[in-house]
Amino acid sequence: MADAVLFEFLHTEMVAELWAHDPDPGPGVSAEPRGEEPGAATGQNMNLSVLESVGFRVGQALGERLPREMLAFREELDVLKFLCKDLWLAIFQKQMDSLRTNHQGTYVLQDNSFPLLLPMAAGLQYLEEAPKFLAFTCGLLRGALCTLGIESVVTASVAALPGCKFQVVIQNS
Amino acid sequence: MADAVLFEFLHTEMVAELWAHDPDPGPGVSAEPRGEEPGAATGQNMNLSVLESVGFRVGQALGERLPREMLAFREELDVLKFLCKDLWLAIFQKQMDSLRTNHQGTYVLQDNSFPLLLPMAAGLQYLEEAPKFLAFTCGLLRGALCTLGIESVVTASVAALPGCKFQVVIQNS
Repeated sequence: MADAVLFEFLHTEMVAELWAHDPDPGPGVSAEPRGEEPGAATGQNMNLSVLESVGFRVGQALGERLPREMLAFREELDVLKFLCKDLWLAIFQKQMDSLRTNHQGTYVLQDNSFPLLLPMAAGLQYLEEAPKFLAFTCGLLRGALCTLGIESVVTASVAALPGCKFQVVIQNS
Repeated sequence: MADAVLFEFLHTEMVAELWAHDPDPGPGVSAEPRGEEPGAATGQNMNLSVLESVGFRVGQALGERLPREMLAFREELDVLKFLCKDLWLAIFQKQMDSLRTNHQGTYVLQDNSFPLLLPMAAGLQYLEEAPKFLAFTCGLLRGALCTLGIESVVTASVAALPGCKFQVVIQNS
């Protein structure tokens, strides 16, 4: 009964709790909290940063539980395919809808009906609320990739609710 | 792979994030944040209160997904048995180990190996850390009971890690 929805409920309430004391987010805030100057950090940005970092550590923890053979992926693309199929299925009971790449280290993962956006009412007026339901998952992807040996920057964008795109840019060291 | 552990990872990291900026909890803090005077609230108590309230809303949301016939329990004891068996199994993949009552509205639910305490190292020196891993679940029980029409006060205590007891005191209106 509860197992499949428990994670989603906890995520929803964690977001609600973070924003409970900061009810008026400014418009135009990106889901990618890094790169902001500390002095310019708003409550909204702080909250997104908290969610991203919680997501990162959960992603790392999930990555560490992978069977050893999965940690030996040779191709970057194989790792991304694994995230889109197996990881997404395990977390959200569905696969990512599409995966595209420019073959130069940038990947776009599209989910046409992202479960963590479903609690939001559909409608253009809610679009600016979307980043707070995406920050955790950006972190989760970044954390899982990190455990698999890939440093990345992950951002998210929404065109039409409840669909969204995650952009993964691999950082070559 | 991930579904069963995802909730536990997210809970662990939510606790870690809350305490990341408050690393020195005072000793002797109860898992029951209510009844404190606001002026006396420490960061520790604030965090426990946040966890309890997030747990409460998750418990409510879980309760609202129950089949309609479950919402028609006639006996208080049946509701508590349901929490100990079905709810616990759905959340933690195990049942509560024992349920006792004084038949006057007080119930003691004992879990001899509570999953959310397992990440903690065993040892007496960690006992004072335990409340932060119990507050969310106190709230969750209180929220589920609330949806089932029962007002309660839920507290938790630890005698020997990773075992714990939840005490539910029914509030007669």
